[in-house]
Amino acid sequence: MTTSSNTGRRPVIVQKYGGSSLASAKHIHNVAARIQARKDDGVDVIVVVSAMGDSTDDLIALSDAVTHGQTPDAREMDTLLSTGELVSSTLMAMALKSDGYDAISLSGIQAGIKTDMVHGSARIADIKTDRIRKELDKGRIVIVAGFQGLAESGDITTLGRGGSDTTAVALAVAAEAERCEIYTDVDGIYTTDPRLTDKARKLAEIGFQEMLEMAVLGAKMNPRSIELGAVYDMPVYVASSFSYEPGTLIHGGEHTMEVRKAVTGIAVDRNVGKITVRGVIDRPGVAAGLLQPLADAGVSVDVIVQNASSDGTTDFTFTVAQASVDKAAQVLGSDSDVEYSEVVTGSDLAKVSIVGTGMENAPGYAAKMFSTLSEVGVNIDMITTSEIRITTIIEKDQLQKAVQALHDAFELEKTE
Amino acid sequence: MTTSSNTGRRPVIVQKYGGSSLASAKHIHNVAARIQARKDDGVDVIVVVSAMGDSTDDLIALSDAVTHGQTPDAREMDTLLSTGELVSSTLMAMALKSDGYDAISLSGIQAGIKTDMVHGSARIADIKTDRIRKELDKGRIVIVAGFQGLAESGDITTLGRGGSDTTAVALAVAAEAERCEIYTDVDGIYTTDPRLTDKARKLAEIGFQEMLEMAVLGAKMNPRSIELGAVYDMPVYVASSFSYEPGTLIHGGEHTMEVRKAVTGIAVDRNVGKITVRGVIDRPGVAAGLLQPLADAGVSVDVIVQNASSDGTTDFTFTVAQASVDKAAQVLGSDSDVEYSEVVTGSDLAKVSIVGTGMENAPGYAAKMFSTLSEVGVNIDMITTSEIRITTIIEKDQLQKAVQALHDAFELEKTE
Repeated sequence: MTTSSNTGRRPVIVQKYGGSSLASAKHIHNVAARIQARKDDGVDVIVVVSAMGDSTDDLIALSDAVTHGQTPDAREMDTLLSTGELVSSTLMAMALKSDGYDAISLSGIQAGIKTDMVHGSARIADIKTDRIRKELDKGRIVIVAGFQGLAESGDITTLGRGGSDTTAVALAVAAEAERCEIYTDVDGIYTTDPRLTDKARKLAEIGFQEMLEMAVLGAKMNPRSIELGAVYDMPVYVASSFSYEPGTLIHGGEHTMEVRKAVTGIAVDRNVGKITVRGVIDRPGVAAGLLQPLADAGVSVDVIVQNASSDGTTDFTFTVAQASVDKAAQVLGSDSDVEYSEVVTGSDLAKVSIVGTGMENAPGYAAKMFSTLSEVGVNIDMITTSEIRITTIIEKDQLQKAVQALHDAFELEKTE
Repeated sequence: MTTSSNTGRRPVIVQKYGGSSLASAKHIHNVAARIQARKDDGVDVIVVVSAMGDSTDDLIALSDAVTHGQTPDAREMDTLLSTGELVSSTLMAMALKSDGYDAISLSGIQAGIKTDMVHGSARIADIKTDRIRKELDKGRIVIVAGFQGLAESGDITTLGRGGSDTTAVALAVAAEAERCEIYTDVDGIYTTDPRLTDKARKLAEIGFQEMLEMAVLGAKMNPRSIELGAVYDMPVYVASSFSYEPGTLIHGGEHTMEVRKAVTGIAVDRNVGKITVRGVIDRPGVAAGLLQPLADAGVSVDVIVQNASSDGTTDFTFTVAQASVDKAAQVLGSDSDVEYSEVVTGSDLAKVSIVGTGMENAPGYAAKMFSTLSEVGVNIDMITTSEIRITTIIEKDQLQKAVQALHDAFELEKTE
């Protein structure tokens, strides 16, 4: 846990509430009560809000309708979408004031959030917290419209997917907050997807690097905000906005005094397709020659495996989202200059990863994972590893069996 | 017609479209086609838009819900309501671009509209047109979010009722436009309410002062925008956004070469109640003593008539909206220090006015009006006059008869 260098002032807490927590006037009032309780703790509270419920989808539907489905102008789209968070932030400030708490809403511009000029996925360049600080010093709760900022041109930008989480963590860093609290419709980070095993256990804490690897676990945490927390060592607490159950604290693991387990959790992805390009003539530039046309066609490639070749040809295998398999095969058949003998596709696959910083300098985890899967009859199709993660691709219908066996083998149901 | 001093550049036209003209994606596309036709005339086009259809009402309903019906904070309300015009302006720019026309939306802030700090009914202090000019010079159609501006504090303000009309006329003045075109769901200004006589005729033109007196005629023109047009001599053209029928040009009458009729039109108001305070002890301060408590209670008083007194007491009569009669009587009974003998209320009244700058220096119009009404058996309850208007209060059930008789008597069905 970091301690604030913001001496002589009340501690600052940043809270973020997502769209499903703000779906109606009633939801807004429930969240207002939570904010008030936090303010009553004697801290300065900055709240970042997303757009209400499905309102962003409604705006996107309108833009589709006026452009007859053409891609709308990115600058106009950013201003359009930024209105969703203006609505929720002003309503939240009104709700707090009607309950007798002094509050003020600030747009991204008013909150001093400066970004680069990449409309639709801008990155925060700087935050000038003068106005926020001034309002906090008046005793006010400050409600900031998430997801948006101001480019140097004077144009409104949006931060893309997970943008409000990014706003919250960046504001916590800029305002020297104690921590950033993300309230959402999940109640924390679990050892694995609870739908796959009833032994899945909520983690009280997890390190930033582990969390980045686990991001697919369904915590709906955007990797950008976790990276930002990691870089600035800003603890991020993830919990439900619908209950008062304890959530999960994501933090810089080095501060933890406890003995940690090697494996923290099991990440899964049910939506995996596979492309194998056989008989590729193995020369420099082949990987780029295969992947660039896919990138140009908007197909995202996940796991990539290339085996060493012996006869001057190699097999090149990669995974894509299941829905992209046919498109990927078609692109390789028409737009690639690389010589190969055939393209083989596979679908109904799943990805299972064990994640944990403790694996980094300890041997044997890969062997234990593979033997565990073998013992329950799960066949491993592909393997990749990072320093703190071992990933296997398996048949989707064996996913539950695999996760249950691994959860038992690494004793994830037991607390640290 | 004024000519622009904006020499060496294309003429500038400002168009304004109201919410009912922008109620859906289809409406927006229809309006986009009209804007394109205007741009194809070879002029620079600035478009001011209101919020789509009922979207402002929807936002107000949300604010009522989160405040449980308390009056929401005015600053928050302004930011909330300003989003409606941001949505319509960005969608319009997208629609134009998808049709191959270069366009850009500007918020009130980006359009350089500076206001005072009166949230909910701010007045425009200044408009810096640099950004608009820059965009026009790139050949772009500029779409400005109406109804909003920026206070010196950095907070968003709204201009109150009819604010988008005010934005349009003010922008026309600042950008040295040829004229300001207001497109709405009525197709122009009529000699009187067409529901009262089928002889009502659309006026091709009308002077600013006459238009101010006629504002109640149902043209939905906000008096502020007409005043602004009058002060800066900016011609304002009012027409339907749903047809290409010619509308009405409101302008500084002195430029008109034609012989004008004395009476331009007949204004009506069906919603009139009356309060008579009898036996008022006539001393200085009596009028204020009666009216201030009403103002404090939010009751708007319209026509006021006080007859000269002979015995030291006087009768004081005024009209209010019919729905306010009971409240007004109650306030006079409890909150007024003025001595009087009794309060008498009346309702089911109507106001009929003949309007025309030609009456200013010509006698006989009042006599003709009163004799016309008398001939058809209409009893006149109250009379007030201004330089270019004669107003009578009559029984509501005699309104149609009165208007038809006056329309005939002043030959309003004939063109000038």
